Amino acid sequence: MISVAIVGKGNVGVHLYQQLVKKDQLNVIQFDSRQPHELNTFNVAILAVSDHAIPKVSKNIKCPLVVHTSGTTSIQELKNPYRKGVFYPLQSFSKEKPVDFPKVPICIEVEEQQDEKLLRFLSECLGSTAYPISSVQRNHLHVAAVFANNFTNHMYEIAKQICDRYNIPFQMLLPLIQETAQKVQYLSPSDAQTGPAKRNDLPTIKNHVHLLEESYKEIYHLLTTSIQNHGKKL
Amino acid sequence: MISVAIVGKGNVGVHLYQQLVKKDQLNVIQFDSRQPHELNTFNVAILAVSDHAIPKVSKNIKCPLVVHTSGTTSIQELKNPYRKGVFYPLQSFSKEKPVDFPKVPICIEVEEQQDEKLLRFLSECLGSTAYPISSVQRNHLHVAAVFANNFTNHMYEIAKQICDRYNIPFQMLLPLIQETAQKVQYLSPSDAQTGPAKRNDLPTIKNHVHLLEESYKEIYHLLTTSIQNHGKKL
Repeated sequence: MISVAIVGKGNVGVHLYQQLVKKDQLNVIQFDSRQPHELNTFNVAILAVSDHAIPKVSKNIKCPLVVHTSGTTSIQELKNPYRKGVFYPLQSFSKEKPVDFPKVPICIEVEEQQDEKLLRFLSECLGSTAYPISSVQRNHLHVAAVFANNFTNHMYEIAKQICDRYNIPFQMLLPLIQETAQKVQYLSPSDAQTGPAKRNDLPTIKNHVHLLEESYKEIYHLLTTSIQNHGKKL
Repeated sequence: MISVAIVGKGNVGVHLYQQLVKKDQLNVIQFDSRQPHELNTFNVAILAVSDHAIPKVSKNIKCPLVVHTSGTTSIQELKNPYRKGVFYPLQSFSKEKPVDFPKVPICIEVEEQQDEKLLRFLSECLGSTAYPISSVQRNHLHVAAVFANNFTNHMYEIAKQICDRYNIPFQMLLPLIQETAQKVQYLSPSDAQTGPAKRNDLPTIKNHVHLLEESYKEIYHLLTTSIQNHGKKL
């Protein structure tokens, strides 16, 4: 029987607990992060706390292996005296919505090879796929995720503002949004690219810039140029 | 029986023909766009030709109602002597892939109200939803679609480049990409927004800019600022 302590009761902590507690092979207990804990009898303590709290909370935990769940924090921010690791689920969690763990890749990092097996096993228990990712890689992955998630969502936001302004139902764009996300599931984004920038359709680009309000003209320009430069690099 | 002439054998023409020809209520014939046609016996001619060819091809077609299928071309570019209209399917078509028409909104525009009924009926035959959209609106919708589709895909492209550079499997981001597109199917993009820009997490933003190569720093800056300004406007 593997004993897992989950420290922290935020989104990530709650979702991990709810899923792992179902497994017969695991003994899982959830702890509050605001107190020190003697967790010597546990195999692993998973810290599901906010990034800035990681050094302080980890210092107060006595457990043979302590892992954090942050996308942006180096493994070295763990200040526990024993073994350290990272167990970072790459997905945006919200409290209300159940997490579909088979669709959540888990970035794992360890200092001692023996611990990789345990973290892989926990990923399996979640139904997730584990990827060994170093702290440096995780940092870059997090930037990449900002483009793939936050900036993409901002493109939707701008599209919606244009629609709202001209009384166009935004729902008209929803199938296109889905199709665009769907396409890169099997095509590389550069092969999937279409549109005026890609085909260097200058009259359409000129017309679009003319139609846009000031604050979006610059974004249109920069992204159009970036698509064109990317095309040249390939 | 309604008679439909489809003029043009490119992507859009072929997909419309394949779908409409199945319907018992329609008589559908496809024509080459390079010759003039006497189509007086047809109820409608659908021009599925490239944008720049619309004036020339429409001039050579004799049919009581001629509609084009372009997202960016005004209804006035039709140079046929009788009634004009627009029948624009908002989705990116590719030759190889069957089109899921129930997921394709159709923008319809007419000059004479009587024609709206026919274009709505054709949308129904495709299983699509028709939206009455003026030429001015269609123009703006097309810009919005560039953000929602081409620029979004470029965000995926940049994410992939970051991944490739640091030997991170891009497939790790695919579930996040799907989730991001999925969320706005029921939440407004501004409600769905998360990330360092949204929560004004300056240390993370600074770290990200530091990690990025020169050509992406500017995009990161501009989009971060735009997300922050958008937040203020709400």
